[in-house]
Amino acid sequence: MTTQIQTVAVVGTGVIGNGWIARFLAHGYDVVATDPAEGAEERMRKAVDHAWPYVEELGLAEGASKDRLTFEKDLSKAVADADFIQENVPEIEELKQTVLQSIDQHAKPDAVIGSSTSGIMPSELQANLQHPERFVVAHPFHPVYILPLVEVVPGKATTKEHVEKAQGFFEGLNMKALLVRHEIEGHIADRLIEAIWRESLHIVNEGIATTEEVDQAFIYGAGQRYAQYGPFLTFHLAGGEGGMRHMLKQFGPALKKPWTKLEAPELTDELYDKVVSGCEQQAGDLSMSELDQNRNEFLVRLLDLVKEYWPEDQKKEKV
Amino acid sequence: MTTQIQTVAVVGTGVIGNGWIARFLAHGYDVVATDPAEGAEERMRKAVDHAWPYVEELGLAEGASKDRLTFEKDLSKAVADADFIQENVPEIEELKQTVLQSIDQHAKPDAVIGSSTSGIMPSELQANLQHPERFVVAHPFHPVYILPLVEVVPGKATTKEHVEKAQGFFEGLNMKALLVRHEIEGHIADRLIEAIWRESLHIVNEGIATTEEVDQAFIYGAGQRYAQYGPFLTFHLAGGEGGMRHMLKQFGPALKKPWTKLEAPELTDELYDKVVSGCEQQAGDLSMSELDQNRNEFLVRLLDLVKEYWPEDQKKEKV
Repeated sequence: MTTQIQTVAVVGTGVIGNGWIARFLAHGYDVVATDPAEGAEERMRKAVDHAWPYVEELGLAEGASKDRLTFEKDLSKAVADADFIQENVPEIEELKQTVLQSIDQHAKPDAVIGSSTSGIMPSELQANLQHPERFVVAHPFHPVYILPLVEVVPGKATTKEHVEKAQGFFEGLNMKALLVRHEIEGHIADRLIEAIWRESLHIVNEGIATTEEVDQAFIYGAGQRYAQYGPFLTFHLAGGEGGMRHMLKQFGPALKKPWTKLEAPELTDELYDKVVSGCEQQAGDLSMSELDQNRNEFLVRLLDLVKEYWPEDQKKEKV
Repeated sequence: MTTQIQTVAVVGTGVIGNGWIARFLAHGYDVVATDPAEGAEERMRKAVDHAWPYVEELGLAEGASKDRLTFEKDLSKAVADADFIQENVPEIEELKQTVLQSIDQHAKPDAVIGSSTSGIMPSELQANLQHPERFVVAHPFHPVYILPLVEVVPGKATTKEHVEKAQGFFEGLNMKALLVRHEIEGHIADRLIEAIWRESLHIVNEGIATTEEVDQAFIYGAGQRYAQYGPFLTFHLAGGEGGMRHMLKQFGPALKKPWTKLEAPELTDELYDKVVSGCEQQAGDLSMSELDQNRNEFLVRLLDLVKEYWPEDQKKEKV
């Protein structure tokens, strides 16, 4: 399987699909996108225009151009010549399986197929494909054109060579292609995000704090650290010279304390309204695009800063 | 209660207590520290020396000096002249109550007493004090001399004027003094951190991923965002134009899916070893102080960067 990836197809052009498109274009690929929704092409081109200044600041590959993006209503035509196909349709298992079967049917047999699913396991999604060996979950993070992580999750039928081709492709997009070696609902990252999310909903649901207070309690302390070190190395460092060994002695007992809730709250209308109005209040006079621009300008600079300090790169430098 | 805070006492000089000392000194206070442990003064002075370059980079107040730190073995003498006293003894409720009673007994009656407790509720800690009205939980984040958050949690007996005095004092230390309006175990931030931590332990415990993989799955995606926006505004933005309203429709159903575990795992010897050795492996050849320096250099620069982008400051600019 020596095919070089030259053309990429994107199936489903929502927030995630459009983020992928900007990233693929910025790295010099020809991109064919498809989506059955009314007005999808216009929204897609707007989204790519919006992302473009940020991908330019991060650095364009030679020959990278927005002109290399085409929209093709017919899925079968859109995927026909692609070497890599990324599926980003809504998170409904039946829908994803139907779309993936049609991609599998019309794509070149050795084209790699990735799915952006947040939580569905690859073995379930590849179950009914003619060529399941070339299917992987490739789960990115919003905004996809800035954030480096993609979780690459092979299913039972996925072959090693296709996993490696996918990983190599994503690394070529300047991404951190994390191989998730065991299938699990939510993969890895979304399990942690979901845990934060459920606990945050409990706190708001019980009237302990507003959404803004919960966000402040996170970003001004823990959040500052998590751009660089994860939950484990953070505690390892908090333990002083004793590291994690000391931390587990000191905070191990907290595992038995009611420091977090363990069921998800009912998403009642009341909770729904608390959360929605809380966020709208937080946004204040800022429009969604002002908030979005503010986040992006920050992330581009943060990314440039944090790169110098990632622990594994420090290790490499030391070796 | 018009007393200006001039002298601060720090009771308990572990990682957190020493972090407070560096922050108090950097903002021009006289600091008296006490700790019964053998060699505590030497460790304290080392810790302050270690922190000093970072607090210098963040900016020293006029007259700020390490020479304004004294160590006093006798707790009753250490707290006698203090206008503000911060308690940082180990997270054992009985021990904290005993120490707080002795602080309460020897301190000036209008001195404010703060406790760094990670999870104990203030009403329990103030229950046996002669002057409970001046006690608050004041929970900071490691490294205390860099990170801005302090959760200020009043107990049932705490008066408004003492809460405001504490908040004003912390804001004068260039901190985000978040008032936690309702008592709850773990306050707010540690409930979110504990949720991430428990889920991370489950993933490692079940052999899904190593500690390093879990950390990578967090820092290269979600963690990059959490330095700026918390769980709510992050989802609000991920929803595109529809914001949180759209997100709850799209991801509300995930609350019913097994995307996170809901009990803490048994902290077995096997799990203990997996976590400890996993972290030591992550650290590689880097010493604890190299890791620590790397984190601090990063956080100082990150803090400077992220300040320009904090949502509430953006709102202020707009108004």
